[in-house]
Amino acid sequence: MVNKIKLGMVGGGTGAFIGAVHRIAARMDDKYEFIAGCLSSTPEKSIISANEINLDLNRCYPDFKTMAEEEAKREDGIEVVSIVTPNHMHADPAITFLKKGIHVICDKPMTSTLDDALSLYRSVKENKALFLITHNYTGYPLVREMKSIVKSGELGKIRSVRGSYLQGWLGSKEEDTGSNKQAEWRTDPKRSGIAGGVGDIGSHTLHLIEFITGIKLLSVAADLTTFVKGRKLDDDASILLRMENGVKGSISISQIAIGEENNLSISIYGEKGSLKWSQENPNQAELHKVGHHKQILTRASFSISKDSFANVRIPPGHPEGYLEAFAQLYSDFAELIRNSKNKDKIKKILPNEEDGLHIMKFINSCVNSSNQNSRWINLNS
Amino acid sequence: MVNKIKLGMVGGGTGAFIGAVHRIAARMDDKYEFIAGCLSSTPEKSIISANEINLDLNRCYPDFKTMAEEEAKREDGIEVVSIVTPNHMHADPAITFLKKGIHVICDKPMTSTLDDALSLYRSVKENKALFLITHNYTGYPLVREMKSIVKSGELGKIRSVRGSYLQGWLGSKEEDTGSNKQAEWRTDPKRSGIAGGVGDIGSHTLHLIEFITGIKLLSVAADLTTFVKGRKLDDDASILLRMENGVKGSISISQIAIGEENNLSISIYGEKGSLKWSQENPNQAELHKVGHHKQILTRASFSISKDSFANVRIPPGHPEGYLEAFAQLYSDFAELIRNSKNKDKIKKILPNEEDGLHIMKFINSCVNSSNQNSRWINLNS
Amino acid sequence: MVNKIKLGMVGGGTGAFIGAVHRIAARMDDKYEFIAGCLSSTPEKSIISANEINLDLNRCYPDFKTMAEEEAKREDGIEVVSIVTPNHMHADPAITFLKKGIHVICDKPMTSTLDDALSLYRSVKENKALFLITHNYTGYPLVREMKSIVKSGELGKIRSVRGSYLQGWLGSKEEDTGSNKQAEWRTDPKRSGIAGGVGDIGSHTLHLIEFITGIKLLSVAADLTTFVKGRKLDDDASILLRMENGVKGSISISQIAIGEENNLSISIYGEKGSLKWSQENPNQAELHKVGHHKQILTRASFSISKDSFANVRIPPGHPEGYLEAFAQLYSDFAELIRNSKNKDKIKKILPNEEDGLHIMKFINSCVNSSNQNSRWINLNS
Amino acid sequence: MVNKIKLGMVGGGTGAFIGAVHRIAARMDDKYEFIAGCLSSTPEKSIISANEINLDLNRCYPDFKTMAEEEAKREDGIEVVSIVTPNHMHADPAITFLKKGIHVICDKPMTSTLDDALSLYRSVKENKALFLITHNYTGYPLVREMKSIVKSGELGKIRSVRGSYLQGWLGSKEEDTGSNKQAEWRTDPKRSGIAGGVGDIGSHTLHLIEFITGIKLLSVAADLTTFVKGRKLDDDASILLRMENGVKGSISISQIAIGEENNLSISIYGEKGSLKWSQENPNQAELHKVGHHKQILTRASFSISKDSFANVRIPPGHPEGYLEAFAQLYSDFAELIRNSKNKDKIKKILPNEEDGLHIMKFINSCVNSSNQNSRWINLNS
Repeated sequence: MVNKIKLGMVGGGTGAFIGAVHRIAARMDDKYEFIAGCLSSTPEKSIISANEINLDLNRCYPDFKTMAEEEAKREDGIEVVSIVTPNHMHADPAITFLKKGIHVICDKPMTSTLDDALSLYRSVKENKALFLITHNYTGYPLVREMKSIVKSGELGKIRSVRGSYLQGWLGSKEEDTGSNKQAEWRTDPKRSGIAGGVGDIGSHTLHLIEFITGIKLLSVAADLTTFVKGRKLDDDASILLRMENGVKGSISISQIAIGEENNLSISIYGEKGSLKWSQENPNQAELHKVGHHKQILTRASFSISKDSFANVRIPPGHPEGYLEAFAQLYSDFAELIRNSKNKDKIKKILPNEEDGLHIMKFINSCVNSSNQNSRWINLNS
Repeated sequence: MVNKIKLGMVGGGTGAFIGAVHRIAARMDDKYEFIAGCLSSTPEKSIISANEINLDLNRCYPDFKTMAEEEAKREDGIEVVSIVTPNHMHADPAITFLKKGIHVICDKPMTSTLDDALSLYRSVKENKALFLITHNYTGYPLVREMKSIVKSGELGKIRSVRGSYLQGWLGSKEEDTGSNKQAEWRTDPKRSGIAGGVGDIGSHTLHLIEFITGIKLLSVAADLTTFVKGRKLDDDASILLRMENGVKGSISISQIAIGEENNLSISIYGEKGSLKWSQENPNQAELHKVGHHKQILTRASFSISKDSFANVRIPPGHPEGYLEAFAQLYSDFAELIRNSKNKDKIKKILPNEEDGLHIMKFINSCVNSSNQNSRWINLNS
Repeated sequence: MVNKIKLGMVGGGTGAFIGAVHRIAARMDDKYEFIAGCLSSTPEKSIISANEINLDLNRCYPDFKTMAEEEAKREDGIEVVSIVTPNHMHADPAITFLKKGIHVICDKPMTSTLDDALSLYRSVKENKALFLITHNYTGYPLVREMKSIVKSGELGKIRSVRGSYLQGWLGSKEEDTGSNKQAEWRTDPKRSGIAGGVGDIGSHTLHLIEFITGIKLLSVAADLTTFVKGRKLDDDASILLRMENGVKGSISISQIAIGEENNLSISIYGEKGSLKWSQENPNQAELHKVGHHKQILTRASFSISKDSFANVRIPPGHPEGYLEAFAQLYSDFAELIRNSKNKDKIKKILPNEEDGLHIMKFINSCVNSSNQNSRWINLNS
Repeated sequence: MVNKIKLGMVGGGTGAFIGAVHRIAARMDDKYEFIAGCLSSTPEKSIISANEINLDLNRCYPDFKTMAEEEAKREDGIEVVSIVTPNHMHADPAITFLKKGIHVICDKPMTSTLDDALSLYRSVKENKALFLITHNYTGYPLVREMKSIVKSGELGKIRSVRGSYLQGWLGSKEEDTGSNKQAEWRTDPKRSGIAGGVGDIGSHTLHLIEFITGIKLLSVAADLTTFVKGRKLDDDASILLRMENGVKGSISISQIAIGEENNLSISIYGEKGSLKWSQENPNQAELHKVGHHKQILTRASFSISKDSFANVRIPPGHPEGYLEAFAQLYSDFAELIRNSKNKDKIKKILPNEEDGLHIMKFINSCVNSSNQNSRWINLNS
């Protein structure tokens, strides 16, 4: 019998979306207990938020610094903290907790600026505490299965990749309605950073392509557009990709694609086969191999590789979804923290500070390219 | 701030499937704490099982009677117990806990025999404790939405219904492999009852049809078959339905449909429209209305009725699945127990002892009809 | 170079549906020339109809008897005639032409009564002219591929079959609107026969199941319903099947399933695998084999067996449809008539008088069973 | 009664693909008779080809010039000719026949070089004969329905468009196998032109986007790749689009996308709604409108606009496909030739020399952009 891991949270108060998701994810596999938090931007709101979710008010803090200070002192203090604030409020708390030796689970993208990302990156390197960035789509069993198939060489050398993440929720000026907190901060350069859709969902799309293929992006040529009048950040983008090993590709991003909900789709084409997956029906993937009929892989079914469904909870045909995929990251991170036998294997697939920083470079390069009439920008220039 | 509901469990030890599902379902929305159990068939196994899932060994009991006795005495005793044993072990523990005033969440079908079902039914009526039977597919948001659409009259008078639940996992004699506990008890008349597939998944299919339409089955003509040699219970069935108000229909059930995973599908046809839904892609449903194009309803999207997504956890396009639907029943039952404001509304949709008994009559009638060369059998004869 | 086959037609005048389909089917592969006809029920209408479609008025006859007489006399007379009248007008013209040595292509079902079917059946046997009944769905390449897969034994012994053909076009009393000729005769017992939906589309469904599996139906238990008030024939049916070799199954038929267009779907389950196909997306089929992922077969793709795509016209991914499948029967029948090398192979798969008579027994047995409270009726009793 | 239009063909001999398609398309609706041809590159092969398809050898010509000369002289000479040769052999015959007053149906792309396209364009303008370029996907009923919906304003102002045409048939060096004529000429710059995949299928994709939206492309930024070693033309491309009215978009093209057959998909996003369509399942389209559920439009169903299904041949739910769509262009062109009442309406939607020339500029601009490291190229610069 192993004790549960003690978890705290910064952000995630009343009206937030992703904080509640993190808490369900932490509960799903029963490896964490959530015991401390600084949930909102003011001490008063934090108390209200804490009360709503039954958090012990003695462990409800007015600011993240006090929280880090106090929790670090306690014998029963938190071992890990989830940072689920808007992007501009990731770096400071994350660094503060890392310095106290408290592991950090950080929402994506890593920060709102590349400078902040570099600071946080260095802080992770300088401290012993562990760092997880929640590129949650990597927790889907079939996404991991696809990674494993590519690695096995079944597709041959990868040639081209195509990804898209299409939403329609920002099709009109939601940020001005006064009732949509999500829209407000995600379209605000001060809180979100220099990119809108590209930062919010383009980041996931590229990360997923790199996760599955194991191949890194080298340069981008991007055309970002703001379709909704008066909006300050991009809400639609088309991006050309040049990756390592001569891999080519493209990404389509939109928040103004009326009728789309969370249509994230990835296709990977190699010399000998291809793979396709779509988040809105995540329990299956398509595998084509030269000389064979198209095959439909299903979650948890017989021939799925061991690594992919280690933590699959229910039999094939019973759908798992977004929350279970998110929970997978929490569950795996718990194994790292508890120093479990398979931690080396897990470490290789969990998104970390390298991913966080790389994705920030991608975001910045897209904006730079678009500002220079879509010329090719090298991520490391 | 409200305290969590104290939950115990009978069954659900090592190697079981549905017990783990119940525990995740109870955790999902943070309304329960799981604190006591009698998890396996022997005291020794129960201790091992309890240890595996971090259950306090002081609240791990050697048998359900002791558990009911002891927990009822404690001030901090459990308020509700989940019965997740094979069918023949539902009635005794359920009645025992009900008598102690402890609410019961009971897996389906209600019992292994109609006599037991009647006893349990009477016990629920005689005691004040609440009773929930986990027809978990009724927890899917779009299933509830369909119920609401039918009720609104949008489809006009219902004419015909078609349901199927097709699995392939028992396509060969899994119960003899020695490694499949599920297959063993589900094909064993002593533990499962007089029906195999019809009891296990036919029960869900009919319940779902009745749940959505609000129309009850009157009689069946059934042809049950055991395709796998040596098996003692049906593994495939085709069933004709005659329901109230002249509604006709049919159900197809199979556990030997090679390649099928958990393909549960329902179609409802009325004079003015129709609805279709399939469990393997549960976040959408099809609505046809005379004079209109086919419409695709998606979970949590704008025009979904209030009742259906009260507890929807994430935005449209992010898939929820089987566990979330299961959790919905736990969450709603918690509202009943806590006597919440909307308990009357909730009471109307939660599966209860009436459903449990009715479904047992359906199972028995199918077997009787099949034994009499598929002649029509009235459920209440 | 081979001359085109000279084709005549009985029925198919202005306002008819299936006559135009037959003519396109005959033209598709350029093996027929359409040169004579008796297109409508009166000489005047026949002339108008002939004129509309550019038929030489010298070969436009006032009645089928004159047509048979005259065409048989001519050196350049028709070699084959298509009978595309309502069911009650199949037997007489077909027998008349057969006696003249003119091959007959007959629409389904074979006739409106079992007696007529027997007379026509005998006439085919007594004459040398060839007979084709247009169970057109057997012309789909993937339907033929499925037949070939079942025959190869890949699925093992067949256990169960499920078919459905759901339409919604008769959801209200279309036959009374005065503008729907199809609805008028298909719901009229005098012209259609003793069955409505079962005769019109149930016939196709059963035939397709038998075509694919090579297994014949032995007995049925059926529940036929007329949902639309005042209609004289069934518009909805659920049918249990018992077939040779212990195969079980069921069929669902409806013309009042609001929102359905021509949803004809077939599933075949064997001991080692299964197949599924649906007419509304006919260029693919699903193949499951024990121990393998689901496979998607596509029309004309690499590993499809030779027989199935002999006459496939365009590459995979370019959809073929209903007209191409219909044309396949015409094309194959031309090979029979022209005595081509592969005529023996073709003969085995073209629907003929045996199919026609057997399906008439199926229709009659369904009605008899339903009239006797769904008791099992042997087709040959 | 109207006589059939007399049709000739240049190209389309043994081993060709598209010639046979054109002939089926011409036959489908019975408006043409095919009576003359110059089918292959040498007189001998032409005779063999003519014999194979029953063409009168007296109307089988050794070269297109003789054919134009002779047919123009005859009273019963051809009225229209289909040019179905490889791209480099479009301009010369087309111009020759146009000068003789014979209408021309020309396969796409218009020519192999921009110069040739300009010559042909001028020739069409200078002569009275009609010109059709077979962008056959515009013949699909739902594609026309989408055009009509966009025009009606239902989607509001169009914002972004996304198209892709993915094939896998050139995934390895098919052009060297000696058995694939299609692969040979389509990868040969002398016969195909300066582009491979972009010319062959990129051309269709852009044309379809412009056809549906009525909005023209202004400039492109393209990244073309040749993945198969030794191939001379692009086999994969990602292209950014800037169109009139501030519309943005992207196109993905591939002939090396293993597992893809003819996956042509188009999405159109406006301020108030969106449309999606995919060629591999062409009998349906998705329509989203703000504040409404997703709607599935089906071919020939009740509310489809008049113009779209004027020539739809069979009821909804019975699939039509590639050949029917192709036939639609032939059928409509016949109406133009016959000067029918609705010719003005038809003229507006049939692809013509303007489309042909514009698409040639698109192809050239893509290659130019790619050669200049993807910089934006204006189509008219």
